[in-house]
Amino acid sequence: MSEFDRGRQTSRRDFLKRGALAGLAVPAGISVLERRTDSTSTSGHPMDPATQAAPARAAATTADEMDAMHEKGVKAFPAKTAGKGNMPLQPRLVNGVKVFELTCSEIMWEVTPGQRMKAWAYNGQVPGPQIRVREGDRVRVIVKNRLPESTVVHFHGLEVPNNQDGVPFITQPPIKPGASFTYEFTVPNAGSHMYHSHHNAAKQVGMGLLGAFIVEPKDKSAEPQADVDYVMILNDMAHGYTLNGKGFPATEPISAKKGQTVRVRYMNEGMQIHPMHLHGMHMTVIAKDGWPVPQPWKCDTLNIAPGDRWDVLVKCHNPGVWAFHCHILPHAESEHGMFGMVTALIVS
Amino acid sequence: MSEFDRGRQTSRRDFLKRGALAGLAVPAGISVLERRTDSTSTSGHPMDPATQAAPARAAATTADEMDAMHEKGVKAFPAKTAGKGNMPLQPRLVNGVKVFELTCSEIMWEVTPGQRMKAWAYNGQVPGPQIRVREGDRVRVIVKNRLPESTVVHFHGLEVPNNQDGVPFITQPPIKPGASFTYEFTVPNAGSHMYHSHHNAAKQVGMGLLGAFIVEPKDKSAEPQADVDYVMILNDMAHGYTLNGKGFPATEPISAKKGQTVRVRYMNEGMQIHPMHLHGMHMTVIAKDGWPVPQPWKCDTLNIAPGDRWDVLVKCHNPGVWAFHCHILPHAESEHGMFGMVTALIVS
Amino acid sequence: MSEFDRGRQTSRRDFLKRGALAGLAVPAGISVLERRTDSTSTSGHPMDPATQAAPARAAATTADEMDAMHEKGVKAFPAKTAGKGNMPLQPRLVNGVKVFELTCSEIMWEVTPGQRMKAWAYNGQVPGPQIRVREGDRVRVIVKNRLPESTVVHFHGLEVPNNQDGVPFITQPPIKPGASFTYEFTVPNAGSHMYHSHHNAAKQVGMGLLGAFIVEPKDKSAEPQADVDYVMILNDMAHGYTLNGKGFPATEPISAKKGQTVRVRYMNEGMQIHPMHLHGMHMTVIAKDGWPVPQPWKCDTLNIAPGDRWDVLVKCHNPGVWAFHCHILPHAESEHGMFGMVTALIVS
Repeated sequence: MSEFDRGRQTSRRDFLKRGALAGLAVPAGISVLERRTDSTSTSGHPMDPATQAAPARAAATTADEMDAMHEKGVKAFPAKTAGKGNMPLQPRLVNGVKVFELTCSEIMWEVTPGQRMKAWAYNGQVPGPQIRVREGDRVRVIVKNRLPESTVVHFHGLEVPNNQDGVPFITQPPIKPGASFTYEFTVPNAGSHMYHSHHNAAKQVGMGLLGAFIVEPKDKSAEPQADVDYVMILNDMAHGYTLNGKGFPATEPISAKKGQTVRVRYMNEGMQIHPMHLHGMHMTVIAKDGWPVPQPWKCDTLNIAPGDRWDVLVKCHNPGVWAFHCHILPHAESEHGMFGMVTALIVS
Repeated sequence: MSEFDRGRQTSRRDFLKRGALAGLAVPAGISVLERRTDSTSTSGHPMDPATQAAPARAAATTADEMDAMHEKGVKAFPAKTAGKGNMPLQPRLVNGVKVFELTCSEIMWEVTPGQRMKAWAYNGQVPGPQIRVREGDRVRVIVKNRLPESTVVHFHGLEVPNNQDGVPFITQPPIKPGASFTYEFTVPNAGSHMYHSHHNAAKQVGMGLLGAFIVEPKDKSAEPQADVDYVMILNDMAHGYTLNGKGFPATEPISAKKGQTVRVRYMNEGMQIHPMHLHGMHMTVIAKDGWPVPQPWKCDTLNIAPGDRWDVLVKCHNPGVWAFHCHILPHAESEHGMFGMVTALIVS
Repeated sequence: MSEFDRGRQTSRRDFLKRGALAGLAVPAGISVLERRTDSTSTSGHPMDPATQAAPARAAATTADEMDAMHEKGVKAFPAKTAGKGNMPLQPRLVNGVKVFELTCSEIMWEVTPGQRMKAWAYNGQVPGPQIRVREGDRVRVIVKNRLPESTVVHFHGLEVPNNQDGVPFITQPPIKPGASFTYEFTVPNAGSHMYHSHHNAAKQVGMGLLGAFIVEPKDKSAEPQADVDYVMILNDMAHGYTLNGKGFPATEPISAKKGQTVRVRYMNEGMQIHPMHLHGMHMTVIAKDGWPVPQPWKCDTLNIAPGDRWDVLVKCHNPGVWAFHCHILPHAESEHGMFGMVTALIVS
């Protein structure tokens, strides 16, 4: 008997039968708890295991209804929604300077199918577009503010000159509504970094003013080989528990082939820790905040705190659809099914 | 004067005297705050230190009452309660396969003396019974569901084949009430792992459907020597703040002799972080999620996030009864005394 | 154009103009939202970018008001308040023993300008005075309790003999109101440690009964060179989010010259994690709980859990005023401006 066959089971028959039962009409106003049946018990003797289980079985219709909600969520994954964040932003090249434009504005953002929420976005995306440059590049970032509040942009993790650091009244005046501001610097250090608002930031970052700023090292000889390079930005504020601006089942699965290596760049832009747990394969931690760790270490659950970036490698040795979620369970599942910080790593 | 004598003190006399005072009858309805006495003040002069301290002394009766509650809790430790979780589960051997049976059912669980709470348990234990196998073992786990909800079992940290991973509607249908399901796999990786529900898990794990799944390595040459091997499972949901299913003073002390080494395998099955602090001796971290760390490191407070497992060694060089608790103080103490995530390491 | 000039921008003019507008008198009772003006829009054509931005500009007065609150906070930094915690405590030398006296009493503590709050303090300071000794020193700590509750002192991280560990009813009776207690021990291990109440501690530590206990190693050859040695104690209870007992803008900036090395000794005496983020320069982690890490590692955001101590070095290569704050943004900023766990590292 193969492992998969072992995986089949005595409940499969029940599963189908109950599925059919669940289709029976129930008059409105009658609690599902009253739809009890002992038809599945086999002897009725008080010491018979089946009878002992009867109270549990009796509530099975409710269990079926709960299961149906869970199944619906899983079957919908990955669900389509309007808008996709973290899309690569191509710079204009002006006299050797890579010029990026970020426009801040209020938009409606579809977090899960049909759940359209007010967001504050860079270029209409949550997270904002992904900026990816190289150590030593000259970069100009032109920020236009079309929000009703002032804002600024802080390049979190980049060791830029102080006047480019984006802290209002310390390094610059705030960028007023309708105004713009130009940042320019030579990219000083490599790694997985972020850009986000640093003004009224608990609100502005919470509403979506955040994005990935990835710097490839000048010397790539020490860079690990990765077939898939995936940025995963966590948030937990205005739009609930999200991965890259979407909640399950609208989150995006990560796909790889067996034998490939996936690099995940975790970034926490929320207000809470999120211990991300990958099923079926371990992660090898290679960098913290863009700095290579002295010796990589392995885990399957990685606690990511607000402001943290962690780079990990996953060697995809185990084929299948692997759940990948925050292990603070109320961030990932309710009795209505999985939601929020859940996605999958699919190894084919 | 020995250190212990130094430890004695000017308050010992007061302590006894006040202890006696605390025995005086107080008419019901009269606030303890009204039982003020200045009998311990010596001069009454406003500049006299004793007088300056008078308001503090005046409330001493209240302090005695608080202290009495604290003392009562400590003196009760370790308090007896019905039921003990995390007991070793012996497998049946069937054609070379180690067969474990887990029955899920609703029980009443005594968390602290007299505090009996509804729990969902494997084999009537919270945490469920401890499964301990060896890397490369063939293992079969037969799960019987006598709960009113469907369930599944996920082997957290084990890199099992996808169809044994226990995620409903992705790797298997849920195990309906009254039904059973058989998992079977060859144990792929060593270390301190867990098994728990992965269906409506915020509730089901919170209610007690969790346990330790420990895999000894095939090659034990790299394993550290430990005289005591202790699993400590943290939870913070339906039954409050617990260590291995019990709250202080019903938690279990860890005992060792001076010179011995204790290995603690922390597992967080709760929804919150718990920075566990050991008094008197440091811990050496040797593994994360079952994977040896490249270089062990030392600490006395270790932040354990949901889903995390951390293995540490404690070299017991310092004799005594050492408090061992979560350092989020409201998880460990109230004005009524210590409770929740508190135990002791006793070195004799 | 210099980087600073780049940093200047199209909004500077607006900034000044709006600053002036903000000075106009507004009749009481008229909402700022009614003070809309399109005077700054240039064409009014629906497709004109300026017009598209009009709704945002229209609310600019409100933005100005918010900005003014933020500016006021920043300009007030570092704000004067009465009282300063964590001041070095000089011991008396008695027969080769370093004798420290700690008196616990209730005081009023100014957390931010004008915000005077009840506190429980050692020697009238929050945090208590800094004790700094050397590995192998003989130390006596005389504790006088002038609080209305009993208390004890636990030396968190020090591997003292059990009867000096400060756990009521396990290692000693509580120190009653008006009484005193003498601890004495030979300092067993080096590093950044703490002392704090271990009785009704969720309240007592929360109210301020905490301090730094720093032990210099006997052998300093492995100690990193640091030009500035800074203790930063985090708390989040009775006095809100504080660094060394003060909330921004009353927090203390850290000052260094370009090229110098700053050692920060983080200590979390609160109930929540605080991922501390330094702008502009990275931190090199050198010790956890007083124990050197096997290999230093780099980061810009360091998650500090309750009970944790982390020592980091900052090589001050980047001149400027660098924000330094908890990255759980609601611990650092509201729409009224920065507050709480915010300070600055000033590199001149």
